[in-house]
Amino acid sequence: MNHSEFLKSWLLHRLVTVELVDMLPEGKLDFKPWGGAMTLSKLVTHLMTSGFQFSQAVKQGAMGDSGEKPVFSSITDLKKYVHEITEQTKSTLTSLTDEDLEKFVDTSKVFGRDLPGKVLLSSMRDHEIHHKGQLFIYARMTGVQNPPFFVKMGL
Amino acid sequence: MNHSEFLKSWLLHRLVTVELVDMLPEGKLDFKPWGGAMTLSKLVTHLMTSGFQFSQAVKQGAMGDSGEKPVFSSITDLKKYVHEITEQTKSTLTSLTDEDLEKFVDTSKVFGRDLPGKVLLSSMRDHEIHHKGQLFIYARMTGVQNPPFFVKMGL
Repeated sequence: MNHSEFLKSWLLHRLVTVELVDMLPEGKLDFKPWGGAMTLSKLVTHLMTSGFQFSQAVKQGAMGDSGEKPVFSSITDLKKYVHEITEQTKSTLTSLTDEDLEKFVDTSKVFGRDLPGKVLLSSMRDHEIHHKGQLFIYARMTGVQNPPFFVKMGL
Repeated sequence: MNHSEFLKSWLLHRLVTVELVDMLPEGKLDFKPWGGAMTLSKLVTHLMTSGFQFSQAVKQGAMGDSGEKPVFSSITDLKKYVHEITEQTKSTLTSLTDEDLEKFVDTSKVFGRDLPGKVLLSSMRDHEIHHKGQLFIYARMTGVQNPPFFVKMGL
């Protein structure tokens, strides 16, 4: 898979994540389906910061930290952030070369060994699908109706 | 990705699905997190029959129906079924050749057009990750503690 094929295969899912976030109702930022779960706000933020962090790691050749975790006071702010960081992540992924996918990234602090860019990107995509699946349940439990299919068709 | 690489990349997730199913408590087959959701039993069965159906389609060159949907009277029976159909799916995937991944499968009745085996297999894997993510929430909401990480490490 080259870098443009990866970008498309990731967007098949990220576009659905964004669509689902845009449907979330106001007043449910702190919703959690069981006592120890991530809140709705934290689940979405975790998904977004991880995607950005992994794409940056492949670009820069080393895994940095995920940066300051944003805190939101309204679902409107969360939605705005999701659109912004999605554009930044997309921009980073668009700037990658096929060579970046083959190069080893310094991930020893996180994974105990260095990993090729393509392995990190594949993990990032799996992580997106995993948490998006969970977000569908959060969305349904907070009253969202007619959510999209889990993957974007016809892209 | 050749057929043995695919098998491994799918097992990274299926092995976790099986591990998680094995932790589910008795008496919760009909649990659902919101009114219109699939029951726990149906979610697991859907995941299993879809995986088997897609792997068979690639082997046989055409998508059949998903077969009779099994009904379970205990979580023990569901767990037994999950182990059995996982072995059958693994056996089918093991028997595939690299040529099977390139060949077009008759999927026109389901997707409106024929698709290469590798596209079907990739969709099957994404579908597994999506519903496994949801199964983590079902598991937590029915009292499972210390579930595994979402992907098998060190395989």
